Amino acid sequence: MSTAIEYAQNHREDHLNELFDFLRIPSVSTQPEHDADIQKAARWLAEAMQAAGLENVRVIQGVGHPLVYADWLHAEGKPTVLIYGHYDVQPAEPFELWESPPFEPTVRDDFVYARGSSDDKGQVYVHVKAVEALLKSNGRLPINVKFIVEGEEESGGASLSAFLPENKTLLAADVALISDTGMPSPEQPALVYGLRGMCYVLLDITGPRRDLHSGSFGGGANNPLNVLGHMIARLKDEEGHILIPGFYDRVRPLTAEEREMLAQFPFDEQAWLEETGVPEAWGEPEYSLIERLGARPTLDVHGIIGGYTGPGGKTVLPAKVHAKLSMRLVPDQDPAEIGRLFTQYVEAITPPSVRVNIEITGAAPASISDWKMPAMQAAVSALEQTFGKKPVFMREGGSIPVVGEFKDILGLETVLMGFGLPGDQIHAPNERYYLPNFYRGIESSIRFFEGYGR
Amino acid sequence: MSTAIEYAQNHREDHLNELFDFLRIPSVSTQPEHDADIQKAARWLAEAMQAAGLENVRVIQGVGHPLVYADWLHAEGKPTVLIYGHYDVQPAEPFELWESPPFEPTVRDDFVYARGSSDDKGQVYVHVKAVEALLKSNGRLPINVKFIVEGEEESGGASLSAFLPENKTLLAADVALISDTGMPSPEQPALVYGLRGMCYVLLDITGPRRDLHSGSFGGGANNPLNVLGHMIARLKDEEGHILIPGFYDRVRPLTAEEREMLAQFPFDEQAWLEETGVPEAWGEPEYSLIERLGARPTLDVHGIIGGYTGPGGKTVLPAKVHAKLSMRLVPDQDPAEIGRLFTQYVEAITPPSVRVNIEITGAAPASISDWKMPAMQAAVSALEQTFGKKPVFMREGGSIPVVGEFKDILGLETVLMGFGLPGDQIHAPNERYYLPNFYRGIESSIRFFEGYGR
Repeated sequence: MSTAIEYAQNHREDHLNELFDFLRIPSVSTQPEHDADIQKAARWLAEAMQAAGLENVRVIQGVGHPLVYADWLHAEGKPTVLIYGHYDVQPAEPFELWESPPFEPTVRDDFVYARGSSDDKGQVYVHVKAVEALLKSNGRLPINVKFIVEGEEESGGASLSAFLPENKTLLAADVALISDTGMPSPEQPALVYGLRGMCYVLLDITGPRRDLHSGSFGGGANNPLNVLGHMIARLKDEEGHILIPGFYDRVRPLTAEEREMLAQFPFDEQAWLEETGVPEAWGEPEYSLIERLGARPTLDVHGIIGGYTGPGGKTVLPAKVHAKLSMRLVPDQDPAEIGRLFTQYVEAITPPSVRVNIEITGAAPASISDWKMPAMQAAVSALEQTFGKKPVFMREGGSIPVVGEFKDILGLETVLMGFGLPGDQIHAPNERYYLPNFYRGIESSIRFFEGYGR
Repeated sequence: MSTAIEYAQNHREDHLNELFDFLRIPSVSTQPEHDADIQKAARWLAEAMQAAGLENVRVIQGVGHPLVYADWLHAEGKPTVLIYGHYDVQPAEPFELWESPPFEPTVRDDFVYARGSSDDKGQVYVHVKAVEALLKSNGRLPINVKFIVEGEEESGGASLSAFLPENKTLLAADVALISDTGMPSPEQPALVYGLRGMCYVLLDITGPRRDLHSGSFGGGANNPLNVLGHMIARLKDEEGHILIPGFYDRVRPLTAEEREMLAQFPFDEQAWLEETGVPEAWGEPEYSLIERLGARPTLDVHGIIGGYTGPGGKTVLPAKVHAKLSMRLVPDQDPAEIGRLFTQYVEAITPPSVRVNIEITGAAPASISDWKMPAMQAAVSALEQTFGKKPVFMREGGSIPVVGEFKDILGLETVLMGFGLPGDQIHAPNERYYLPNFYRGIESSIRFFEGYGR
C-alpha cells in the first residue's frame, strides 16, 4: 500500500470535518443574497488548497463569481492533469422538505445529507485531499496538477467561459479530470465517456390580443394552447422519434462494439422504475433503455403556462401561451444548427391564425472521449484497485458544458470519474453523498495520479 | 306613442340614477367577502320592484345567495311572461386595468363603465322600469309578469337549480324572457334563438413520482407535457374538426333555411378581426365564421399548468401536468354522453407510460327556440319599432344554462332579447353598457308587453 493511501486512511476524520465546514457555507450561486457566501466558499477552498501543499493559489475575481486556481508543477517530464470542479450549489428551496437543515451536514446511515454534498463539493474536494496525502507522505506528486474550480456551474458558468480562451497557457495540460458524475451502485465504479449536449428553447404563441370568452369566440379564433398541442405532437412522435427534418443527420451511429459494451452495463431496470415511479419505461423501440438515456437525442417540454390556471374552471381562449423545451443532443449534432432547424420547422408548421416567437437560450455541444486513451486506462486501474471491481464505461444523459469547452478551447480530453450515486437527490431536497465514496474517491485520485505518472 | 313610452322618456334621468345605485353595490358572487353586498343588492332590487308596482316581492334565502321574486298577475286571459336576470357580477380583478373604479359608474362617450353594467344589472333592470312605466301611466300591465332574479349566475347557479323543480306552480308561465345577450351593433337589434351547451373537463396526466432531471431521464421516462400535446392533437385536428368518435352523431344539421338566415346576418369580419386581434379567422372550412361561432361545437383548452414555469429555463421532466378544457355543444348533443365519449377516448389514447385522471366538472345542454313562435314575433315587432330596424336572429356561442333548465323543468321556450354590444368587455376590466340601449331596452320591453298582450 502506498504511504499516501495510508495517510488518507489515517486522516479520514479530519478530512470529513473539513468537508463539513465546506458544506456549511451556503454558496448558492443563483441567489444574490448568497454573494458573500460565494466569496467565503472561494476563500475557504483556496485556504484548503494552500494547506494541502498546492502552490500559486489564487482567487480570481472576474465578471461574476470568482474562480479558484492552484497548481503543483514540479514533476518534470510527467503529464499534467487539469482538475475541474465547482464550489457553488443549487438553491435549497423548498426548505420544508429537508429532513435536516441543508447547510448543516448531518450523517444518517453512512450518508451525509447537505446541499452540495454530492454536487459537487464532496467530489471536487477528494482531489485536494489526494494531493495533500501524496505531498505529506512523499513530499512530491507523481504528476503535475492544476486546479480550476468555479462558482457558477449552477448559474451559467460565464466567468469560466470568458476565462478559458484568455488563459490557455495557464491551463495547458495533457488531460482534464472531473468528478461531477455518478456510478450505478456503491459497489460499481464507472467512467463516463459520453455526455449529451443541449439546445434550450423558449416558445411563445400568441393568438388574440386579449383572453377571449371561448363561448363567444371558440370555433372562429384559433387557440394558442390547442396550437401548442399540435406543435408538440409534430415535434416528436408518440414513440419518441423527433420529427424535425435534418435533426438526426449528424448523429454518430452507435458502433456494434459500443452497443455491446453498453449492453454489459449493470442496469437494474426494476430499480430504475422504482426510483422514477413511472408505470413503464418508454422511448425509441429500436434502442435499449440505457442507450436511450445517454446515447440518443431527446426533446422534452419542461414547462407550459397559459390560460386560466387557478382552481376550478374558466372558459378563456388565451391570448398567449409560453412553453419551455429542450433537446438533448449527442455527438456530432451541432447545437447551433439544431436551433436553426428547430426554428425553421416550428415557423413552417405555425398556422397563420397565430404568431410564434422562438428564443434559443442555451446551446452546449455533446461530447465523447476515447475510452482507450492512457489517462482513461489509469482511471480504470485506480478505480479497480480501490473498489475491487472493474469500472463500467457509461454515457451520461445530462450535459457538462465545460467538457465541450475544455475540448474546443484547450484541446483536452476529459476523464469523468464520478462518485455520486443514483439516489443522491442532487438539485432536490435531501441531497446526500455516500461517505465511503468520499474516502474511496480520495484513494482513487491518489492511485490515478500514481498510475498516470508511471 | 303609448303613454308608457312617454313616461319612460320623461324619466330617463331617474332611471339612470337608480341603475347607478344598483351598480355601486359590489355584488360579486364568487368572493365570500362580498356576501353582505350580495344581500344588499338583492334587497335593493326587491325594493325597486316594490316601488315599480310589482307585487308579492320576496327575497328568498336558500342554500346560497338569495333569489328575488316579484309578480303582477291581474291581466286575466292574457299570457304570462317569466322574466329572468341576475344581480350578481363577475369579480373586478385586475383592478389596476380599470380606467375608472369598477363600482363607481362613470359615463364616457354614451357608455357607462362599471362592473355588471352590461352583464346583467343594466339589462335586467330595463324590465323593472318597463313595468313601472306601464303601471304608472296606465295603472295596469297588458300581460302577466313574474320576475325571478338570481345572485349566482357567475358562480354556478345552484340555488336557482334547486328552486326550479320545487316551485313549478309559482313560476308557471307561457314564455320566458331574458335580457343577458347582445346585438351585433348599436343600430342592429337581435334575437338569440340558439345557445351552445358545454361539457367542462379537468385533466391530470401523471408520469414519474417526482420531477426528474431531463438529462438523466429524458428518452426513458415519458413526459406528461409531451403526452398532453399529443392528446390535444388527437382531440381536434388543425382545421378544427373534433376527433372523438361519436362526437358529432347527435349534432342537428343546419337546414338550408337556417344557413340562409345566418348568411344574412350583418357580420363585420373586419371589425371582428380588429376586436379579437387574431391574425386571421380560423376553423372548420365547411362552415362560415358566423356558423362556427354559434352553430358548431368546439373543443378548447383553457389552461395548462405543468413543469417549470418561472423565468428562464430549467430542465425538468415534470411529474404531473394539469389541463382544463371544454367542449361547446350544439343541439341535440347530450352533455353527459359527450363527457362519456371524451373520457373513453382519452383513456384509450393514453399511453401505458403515464396515468390519466379525468373529471367532468360542468355540463349544460345547448338550446334552440322556434323563431316563429308568437312571443318571438312580439319581440321582433317591439325591437323593430324601437330601433327602426328589423332584428336579426342569431345563435350565440356561449351557454346560458338557465335556458335549458326553463325548457326541461318548466317547459318554457325563452325569448333572448339582449342589449349588450360586442365591445362591452363583460368579465373583463372596463365593462361598459351603451346608455342609449338602456333607454331603448326599456322601450322595447314596454312594446313587447303591449304586443304580446294584444
